[in-house]
Amino acid sequence: MTDTTDRAALEPAAAPRTPRAGARRGRPGYDQDEIVRVATDLFTRHGYEATSIGMLASELGLTKSAIYHHVASKEALLRIPLDRALHALEQSLEAGRPPHVPDNATAGQRVEAVVHATALALIEELPSVTLLLRLRGNTPLEREAMERRRAFDREVTALVEACAADGELADGINPRIATRLLFGMINSITEWYRPGGPLDADAVADLVVAMAMHGLRGR
Amino acid sequence: MTDTTDRAALEPAAAPRTPRAGARRGRPGYDQDEIVRVATDLFTRHGYEATSIGMLASELGLTKSAIYHHVASKEALLRIPLDRALHALEQSLEAGRPPHVPDNATAGQRVEAVVHATALALIEELPSVTLLLRLRGNTPLEREAMERRRAFDREVTALVEACAADGELADGINPRIATRLLFGMINSITEWYRPGGPLDADAVADLVVAMAMHGLRGR
Repeated sequence: MTDTTDRAALEPAAAPRTPRAGARRGRPGYDQDEIVRVATDLFTRHGYEATSIGMLASELGLTKSAIYHHVASKEALLRIPLDRALHALEQSLEAGRPPHVPDNATAGQRVEAVVHATALALIEELPSVTLLLRLRGNTPLEREAMERRRAFDREVTALVEACAADGELADGINPRIATRLLFGMINSITEWYRPGGPLDADAVADLVVAMAMHGLRGR
Repeated sequence: MTDTTDRAALEPAAAPRTPRAGARRGRPGYDQDEIVRVATDLFTRHGYEATSIGMLASELGLTKSAIYHHVASKEALLRIPLDRALHALEQSLEAGRPPHVPDNATAGQRVEAVVHATALALIEELPSVTLLLRLRGNTPLEREAMERRRAFDREVTALVEACAADGELADGINPRIATRLLFGMINSITEWYRPGGPLDADAVADLVVAMAMHGLRGR
């Protein structure tokens, strides 16, 4: 082997870690998923702007050039988890539409299905959604993601408003503010849910739906 | 007047602002409340550690020495809003005890009273509670405040567990996780409530109680 530059660039530069099981041959140590995972965590902890590729390199024990071998830029590293989070949330709207609910489902049944799917999406994409929810909006990409999230919020609000119009909400429930409270409840999952806790993802989603529709005391 | 040092130190150093109405004579421009208000806002936006007395001075248009005339240290400036927030939350536990509820109130009635009072406390002390909820725990004072907040959370959890023990919770409601969701709902007030919105503080607190106890669909 006469030129080992590329390979050397992919070797841990310091504080070597155990390579991920199943990492591709010829790219020892890290693949793009792993880099994105660690970047997501750093962006969430320190904020996107305060996180540098140098910090990421040091956290991964790689050189900066090794990271640029996998991703074009810091912005590209932010875009991947944000897209994943937003896609998961947007998909959960599908759960409230046929064929996932009957054609004649009421607005209330559709809200239940969407709340369940949104809670599951948060748990399945926990690190990405946590990052999305903590964005500060200092860069165009962040603001674009926040706008896409607001569009999702508006769709859910419209669904709760449809419940109100159909007489499916309790008296005195303001649909817009109730939707804010609903998101407060759902989004809190990113604050306290830890995989391996007493309830699995499906049980948590069921509990969120029960609380959203009928509260602590039930019907 | 031969020595104007103190007075000069209290004069705006740059970008002078309109003095607060009713500011005490002899302390033109700012009093401690105003300094705490602006510091609370900066701590919330930038984090406690990233906020310097210099940034605060520049935001207020005062010299640093003028600020130290009013408060002993940056830590003292953090302690004031955190104490205020924690005191307000702790007081809301009183709302669930006699004489604020009847001696024979059920655990469910006590939870309702505490949820209502906590929602009101958040709205009345919105900037201080927002700061408390966003603490990162990098200093002993922050960690002490977070521990006091966790003690409050535990008291509310115990009350919801008492509901469960008394058979006042709907089937399948895990009281600990339901309390997390409850706090997610209540704490979200700091994200979306703006004074002068469509609902006043009391109406928001009523809505939070309605959602907490009976959900969107009601009993």
